[in-house]
Amino acid sequence: MGVKEQRWILTAQCPSRLGTVDVVTRSLAETENYIVTMNSFDDKATESFSIRVEFRPLGGEHSLEKFRELFDARAAGFDMQWQLTEPDHRTRTAILVSKYDHCLNDLLYRYRTGELAIEIPLIISNHPDLKHLADWHGIPYFHLPITPETKPEQEGKVWRLINEYDCELVVLARYMQVLSSELSAKLDGWAINIHHSLLPGFKGAKPYHQAWAKGVKLVGATAHYVNDDLDEGPIISQGVQAVDHNHYPEDLVAKGQDIESQTLARAVRYHTEKRVFLTGDRTVVFPD
Amino acid sequence: MGVKEQRWILTAQCPSRLGTVDVVTRSLAETENYIVTMNSFDDKATESFSIRVEFRPLGGEHSLEKFRELFDARAAGFDMQWQLTEPDHRTRTAILVSKYDHCLNDLLYRYRTGELAIEIPLIISNHPDLKHLADWHGIPYFHLPITPETKPEQEGKVWRLINEYDCELVVLARYMQVLSSELSAKLDGWAINIHHSLLPGFKGAKPYHQAWAKGVKLVGATAHYVNDDLDEGPIISQGVQAVDHNHYPEDLVAKGQDIESQTLARAVRYHTEKRVFLTGDRTVVFPD
Amino acid sequence: MGVKEQRWILTAQCPSRLGTVDVVTRSLAETENYIVTMNSFDDKATESFSIRVEFRPLGGEHSLEKFRELFDARAAGFDMQWQLTEPDHRTRTAILVSKYDHCLNDLLYRYRTGELAIEIPLIISNHPDLKHLADWHGIPYFHLPITPETKPEQEGKVWRLINEYDCELVVLARYMQVLSSELSAKLDGWAINIHHSLLPGFKGAKPYHQAWAKGVKLVGATAHYVNDDLDEGPIISQGVQAVDHNHYPEDLVAKGQDIESQTLARAVRYHTEKRVFLTGDRTVVFPD
Amino acid sequence: MGVKEQRWILTAQCPSRLGTVDVVTRSLAETENYIVTMNSFDDKATESFSIRVEFRPLGGEHSLEKFRELFDARAAGFDMQWQLTEPDHRTRTAILVSKYDHCLNDLLYRYRTGELAIEIPLIISNHPDLKHLADWHGIPYFHLPITPETKPEQEGKVWRLINEYDCELVVLARYMQVLSSELSAKLDGWAINIHHSLLPGFKGAKPYHQAWAKGVKLVGATAHYVNDDLDEGPIISQGVQAVDHNHYPEDLVAKGQDIESQTLARAVRYHTEKRVFLTGDRTVVFPD
Repeated sequence: MGVKEQRWILTAQCPSRLGTVDVVTRSLAETENYIVTMNSFDDKATESFSIRVEFRPLGGEHSLEKFRELFDARAAGFDMQWQLTEPDHRTRTAILVSKYDHCLNDLLYRYRTGELAIEIPLIISNHPDLKHLADWHGIPYFHLPITPETKPEQEGKVWRLINEYDCELVVLARYMQVLSSELSAKLDGWAINIHHSLLPGFKGAKPYHQAWAKGVKLVGATAHYVNDDLDEGPIISQGVQAVDHNHYPEDLVAKGQDIESQTLARAVRYHTEKRVFLTGDRTVVFPD
Repeated sequence: MGVKEQRWILTAQCPSRLGTVDVVTRSLAETENYIVTMNSFDDKATESFSIRVEFRPLGGEHSLEKFRELFDARAAGFDMQWQLTEPDHRTRTAILVSKYDHCLNDLLYRYRTGELAIEIPLIISNHPDLKHLADWHGIPYFHLPITPETKPEQEGKVWRLINEYDCELVVLARYMQVLSSELSAKLDGWAINIHHSLLPGFKGAKPYHQAWAKGVKLVGATAHYVNDDLDEGPIISQGVQAVDHNHYPEDLVAKGQDIESQTLARAVRYHTEKRVFLTGDRTVVFPD
Repeated sequence: MGVKEQRWILTAQCPSRLGTVDVVTRSLAETENYIVTMNSFDDKATESFSIRVEFRPLGGEHSLEKFRELFDARAAGFDMQWQLTEPDHRTRTAILVSKYDHCLNDLLYRYRTGELAIEIPLIISNHPDLKHLADWHGIPYFHLPITPETKPEQEGKVWRLINEYDCELVVLARYMQVLSSELSAKLDGWAINIHHSLLPGFKGAKPYHQAWAKGVKLVGATAHYVNDDLDEGPIISQGVQAVDHNHYPEDLVAKGQDIESQTLARAVRYHTEKRVFLTGDRTVVFPD
Repeated sequence: MGVKEQRWILTAQCPSRLGTVDVVTRSLAETENYIVTMNSFDDKATESFSIRVEFRPLGGEHSLEKFRELFDARAAGFDMQWQLTEPDHRTRTAILVSKYDHCLNDLLYRYRTGELAIEIPLIISNHPDLKHLADWHGIPYFHLPITPETKPEQEGKVWRLINEYDCELVVLARYMQVLSSELSAKLDGWAINIHHSLLPGFKGAKPYHQAWAKGVKLVGATAHYVNDDLDEGPIISQGVQAVDHNHYPEDLVAKGQDIESQTLARAVRYHTEKRVFLTGDRTVVFPD
């Protein structure tokens, strides 16, 4: 096997209707764009349609041009939102952190190895602690302290930086701040957060200590899109790890951090590979 | 490798104190009982000590006699509760069910194949539906209907049957009744219940529908000892299974039932192999 | 959420070519057949195209008729092999066994619970041992002893029975016989076999004993289509289970049997749900 | 829960005999060393006994002194090899690499976060490529090129460096060289190697390409002690990861590297936590 060919990705979403798949595939075929793999799902709960296609433009840029022109008109007839992603696209990603470095470390490693197709134009934190990591990777680090009083102002700065650096994705890599409704709304659908998930569910402070007190045998993590409902946005990925009686609360925290890192990285990869579609409060995730 | 040798199991528990392990191992050595494998754990949170030893009596019944005599006196000095389990012991297990058959089916299969070292002298249900399963396996099936009014009376019958049949273990294999505090108290530490565990936690009715609405990517189950705290007793085992957007609530239920069956069976096996020790609201589980 | 709607399944395969997806989706759209979910894959290694569509005929039988007629002609132009599977179709499955009952038991249980959409018109064995299982489920059991001398004759009987009972699928549920090239060839692509898979690979007799001698920490199983290459046909599914030093060879066998049963059941489900496509010596499996 | 108390670790091994556990626990008790957790295993296949104890010296250094003195004599009577490991001990570990950085990166990260209780006094490679990683972590990097002619000489240098830097453990983190029998023999039992493990087993060149050609659904890795039997030493840990038809050989390689990194890290952790005992060609691994 040689190297994998360069594939463009077409993603589209619209209300359920007869012909939604057809309009996509026909338009690709007529403009000589070759479908390598595709997934579609018609969600009857929300009556919404989602499709993801990986294709090769047989006629190169010319095929792409023709497709854009042809499909634009047709898609409009289906109220279809669509997007083309080029083969080498790297998603510009702002990472927000506080003091914990496990998720940031993991993301930076996968970024550096190329496992994650992202650029990281900047890292923002309400603490100075992790600047050394940013420095080694040559990434600008913005320390924006926050207090109840300065929160609106600080969030304003965060928002301006995200825009200034043309970010397409925001990752809250254990950013221990509750975002305001305003900022959450602005980031709806393009910001990913990670938090622990324990069985049975524990709310409130020191969740790992609560979980330990129940003698849980699994610790887990959930990566989800940020929305107004704190820690309850649409779920992208979840993971778990076994623990036992030898694990004291501080051990559960360590195990939890491992699974947090892996689960967040997976969610970021799915998002940047355009595998995730929002449908109501749920996500459609087409696996690789 | 030939067949595995016959091993006796010694389990003991007492308050933490210097010499707890020693008194066990010395007594075994002095009476020519050969330790094959052992686990012990001293829980600093509850300051309690748990130990499990698999051993071969080199002198046969004579060694066992000597050990019982010698150890009885010494153990008393440590306020140690202890138990000897013979190699071929099969735990007499009462199974309580309602209408769902997935857990019962799974237990009966593992019982028949010998994977679970249990006897099942009787099956009790508040519904007649699963009698045919009991019949095929030649197990007495008691149909004890229940209503709010007859609950005390029905639980009284359940309790009498459990005793009448000399059961050492009670398994609630999706017995959809909340036990009274009285019965829960009587079964404390020797009754195992199974219930779903979803990430994040969902309370109340139709949990799988709630989980679906959040777009969970994992469904799980928790097996625990019954106590007064409904569905919140000490956890013995937990399991999870992946799901995705293709799974509608009824699919989540099906996946959930699979993992419920497996998780319950594992808990029953651990219990019957004397691997589970209660320490406060948690369990110490020595893995195989 | 109400009950899942009835979905027809269209599966098709042909050489790679522009327009393969389009001809499928357009034909469905033009005949008012509504696509719920679809997967397609264009394998560049074998230059073959595979597609699976779940759809609802909006016009009922009329839509299906129109589709069959319209698509038949169009598909021919792509040398496309295609198949329609109705919503309630249950695959007629012949099960071949020897003396081990773990896989048979597991299949019968999932068949009875409806997890597997199969009919089991007959069970064939070269031993009488498992007749009682067939009897309880009311399934004809054919005992066809085999010796080196009688092998061709016995395989002839097996083949006739499979045809006589109109079987669409043959499952070798630990049928401890090497099929002749003739029979293997006849069953190519519609017979599923299960065998252990150990890391690192062990060939020859008593594989679990060999694996134990290496101190393996995982035992696994592989389910694959039967072909001439003994135990090396196209892989459908694989599974593993953790083991440790406490496990003697006989324990590894037990653990191995668990994972064999689960892995085989998964392969059967994928096959009956038309999720598996052959492409050269590999399979394309569209997950649920 | 407060911080975990400081625990000493006692590990010992000897031929199977009555009283082996007792002599350990009694000696600890008599010298006021408090056992927190312990595991022992008597392997009937090799008739060897292994024990691991985590304990707290109630009398501090005095208790330890007394134990060493008392136990030294007694252990001799059982031909027992034993070792005490202090709470904060960090295993001095030499890492050997070639050009692949995935395992090295992973080890360095877990080393930096403290997940692995190791010191890394030096990194040795037959290539200059990974020097920048060593530099950032401030670890000496020795580039020792190798050719068939210079192999004995190069291995001599490697051996001298390992000794010069007082290393207790050698990790071959994808060191793509076959060690000579001489060096393998010297490293027997204290050098860990990682290699792929594929189901079914593939030997020879481009294993992932072979695996891809069979359409494997799992890729795995095995970490083992180095011995003369290339890639076949006693297994410490194994891991697997799911793959599918979308994965071309180069993708399998990437997935394989992930699982190699995780499996190697786990083996190193088990070794440094003194959880691994050699018994014949197998290992006894007491889990955490």
